[in-house]
Amino acid sequence: MKPSALSALGQRATEPPISWLMHAALSRPKLISLAAGFTDSVSLPVADARAALNRVLRSPRTGRPALQYGFTAGDTVLRKLTAEHLRKLDFHARTASSFSSSSLVLEPKSGMKNEDEKKYSPERLLVTSGSQQLLYLIAEALCDEGDIVLVEDPTYFVFLGILQSRGLHARAVRLERDGLDLAHLERILTSLKCRGELRRVKFFYLVSYYQNPTGVTTSFEKKRGLLKLLKKFERDAGHPIYLLEDAAYRELCFPGRADLPVSPTIPPSAQAVPGAAERVIYAGTFSKPFATGVRVGYGILPQPLFTAVKHIKGNHDFGTSNLLQHLIARALASGIYGRHVARLQKRYTHKAHVMKLAIEEHFPSSVEWWKPEGGLYFWARLPKTVPTGIKSKVFSTALKNDVLYVPGEICYAEDPARRKPNHEMRISFGNATEKDIQEGIRRLGKVLQEILVQ
Amino acid sequence: MKPSALSALGQRATEPPISWLMHAALSRPKLISLAAGFTDSVSLPVADARAALNRVLRSPRTGRPALQYGFTAGDTVLRKLTAEHLRKLDFHARTASSFSSSSLVLEPKSGMKNEDEKKYSPERLLVTSGSQQLLYLIAEALCDEGDIVLVEDPTYFVFLGILQSRGLHARAVRLERDGLDLAHLERILTSLKCRGELRRVKFFYLVSYYQNPTGVTTSFEKKRGLLKLLKKFERDAGHPIYLLEDAAYRELCFPGRADLPVSPTIPPSAQAVPGAAERVIYAGTFSKPFATGVRVGYGILPQPLFTAVKHIKGNHDFGTSNLLQHLIARALASGIYGRHVARLQKRYTHKAHVMKLAIEEHFPSSVEWWKPEGGLYFWARLPKTVPTGIKSKVFSTALKNDVLYVPGEICYAEDPARRKPNHEMRISFGNATEKDIQEGIRRLGKVLQEILVQ
Repeated sequence: MKPSALSALGQRATEPPISWLMHAALSRPKLISLAAGFTDSVSLPVADARAALNRVLRSPRTGRPALQYGFTAGDTVLRKLTAEHLRKLDFHARTASSFSSSSLVLEPKSGMKNEDEKKYSPERLLVTSGSQQLLYLIAEALCDEGDIVLVEDPTYFVFLGILQSRGLHARAVRLERDGLDLAHLERILTSLKCRGELRRVKFFYLVSYYQNPTGVTTSFEKKRGLLKLLKKFERDAGHPIYLLEDAAYRELCFPGRADLPVSPTIPPSAQAVPGAAERVIYAGTFSKPFATGVRVGYGILPQPLFTAVKHIKGNHDFGTSNLLQHLIARALASGIYGRHVARLQKRYTHKAHVMKLAIEEHFPSSVEWWKPEGGLYFWARLPKTVPTGIKSKVFSTALKNDVLYVPGEICYAEDPARRKPNHEMRISFGNATEKDIQEGIRRLGKVLQEILVQ
Repeated sequence: MKPSALSALGQRATEPPISWLMHAALSRPKLISLAAGFTDSVSLPVADARAALNRVLRSPRTGRPALQYGFTAGDTVLRKLTAEHLRKLDFHARTASSFSSSSLVLEPKSGMKNEDEKKYSPERLLVTSGSQQLLYLIAEALCDEGDIVLVEDPTYFVFLGILQSRGLHARAVRLERDGLDLAHLERILTSLKCRGELRRVKFFYLVSYYQNPTGVTTSFEKKRGLLKLLKKFERDAGHPIYLLEDAAYRELCFPGRADLPVSPTIPPSAQAVPGAAERVIYAGTFSKPFATGVRVGYGILPQPLFTAVKHIKGNHDFGTSNLLQHLIARALASGIYGRHVARLQKRYTHKAHVMKLAIEEHFPSSVEWWKPEGGLYFWARLPKTVPTGIKSKVFSTALKNDVLYVPGEICYAEDPARRKPNHEMRISFGNATEKDIQEGIRRLGKVLQEILVQ
């Protein structure tokens, strides 16, 4: 091997598995990709974005600040609007859902108000280049090489790429239909404690709404239980164990429709748990619900983490593009954003319905699949003996039939405690047209019929 | 101290010194800041950006790709336009300057063409969120904790912040009026070799045009000499030693004017040195010459570094905002960019001239100062016994008189081989109005007269 000047990180950083899938797609022009996490192209807000940008750039007075450097933590107006947006999302979830009868509203109102003011303060809010950048910054700010991050099993595979490149280890916690298996988490934490490894555990990474890849939403009770468990083990860890709640898909929820399985309750974020301000890192984004080409995400962070992450972000780029921030601020303040999200929710509801009908029609009955209540993905599970990975017969036959999915195995962390399941698939309705969803699922169904029903 | 979960990096990352200066500025509304590296607000291309964005977003066909995810390495059209832009900059420099008689054009033309095609290939070009992000990515991809980076003395202080946060050491090489003191660099490399530390040396960080903070431009001969020296020590290092050429200010050059000291030659980049494609990392930006609120920078990188950096960038943010990239591509292709840069060069030429006249009128003769030929900064040197740092009499008196500069000492790396000079100042004409430049320099001159002439 030629000598290289690369750092350990530079050597470890590998091509994300999804890139390989994209390349495969490019070489087959007739291929229908149900793999990419791209959002719906047709509903991208071209006219809305143009209108908002014309307002921002209508005069030197409004335009110059958008074209100049800003603050590392983000534009003051956008931070205020975002904090308020988030407070409303949680408030709406609290009042509209079954939590109206939970302990949340039993607290003295004035106390809650004070806590809410602290929780949803713009001072704790950092604007980032998509929420992806926040995930990277958190890993940098909290973890040294060899540290351990707790994740769902399976989880968002780009996050696993961050861990791998930075020399971090994952411990994977089983998922149930309403989120984490908390008993499993407790066993993992106990075992880490016994082995003296708790001091290496810095945070839990939770994709809380319509999880990528499974579509699972973690219930509020489980968020509460999770925070309680982490707190319980902090003394032995010797430091705080944070909960990083990645709510990237939160606003892509499906509105109620008789023919779709709809959750009556969209849980509030973990921020709504009393005392959460000290332990919850909330990662949100405007990219997925507005336009993925406009990379604006954000985080709400406890101190001293907020300050550390802001300093690291200063070294990365001293702040996300002001033009993009002013665009989003304008879209939020004018109502453009809210109206777009409402339209988008309807569109995804419909596309998910189209996919559900196609799956019901074409998939063999031995394939178990989960209907999401939001987000971009269906999750399907084949019999355990039938692998779906890149080298499997299912994958190669699907590719030959011009349809692509994400093999489930790439969503599983390296964890010595279990074998990676390799019989699942993530199927996205995000970017495909209705026709392609129907045709893609028909092709995939045919492949599955051929291989499973013999 | 309370126990913290922060990583070593998270603990080391500190507030950049410039933030402190900005805060000081905010609390004094009448203060004239000659400190910030902000660009000229009045000439920000508000109407141009609006026109370009209206073109990009004129229809779903053109608008949707700008609002969708893109490739991690950058938009294909922008990468092509940027590579061509860069080739032209170097070609223009080669033919317009004294290099017409140098060895460059003595090479066989066909050979050069082939090498140029490789050097300025879009395949080697990575789009980043400002060139700042590229600097961070390079440090990540090449350096492990404890590694050594060679820098100019003084250098860009935000880069020093990157090194400090990542636990890297700097070795500082003396600057002369035409760039590096190569003999000093050779002594440093020899001494590192003797101590067995060469294997820790990964790259040289050079701000090659109108350097921040001194305004110095490195001559082409010195770039050639620098590459030769680095190459000479590679065998003992056991790996390549790269040259990271930060050309952030390159396009902010002053056109010729009788009353200004103008360089007859703008040197080509280090890329133009034969064989440079394997060792030079070129960092450029559209933010400073177009709009700093539009954070689009780029790098040209040798393999295998290109691939490693692309993977790390994928983990950071999977690609810079497509909307910003389409805006810049449109501005480049339509001529908007070129016309704006020409206007900007005239404006900075004028502002630098205003500052020069004011300095000539108000500064005591014991202050030595360097006239830049581009960029945003003057560099002034007081007698060695008169400190200019944040706790100095000069600084506090200047602040009392409502004028702010950047103390020279923050631009010097921690280097045990010398004491940090602390008697200099960086004075920027970037964002101040003409009137403020005149009044700011008058105030600063009065402070210097009071303290120096007694």
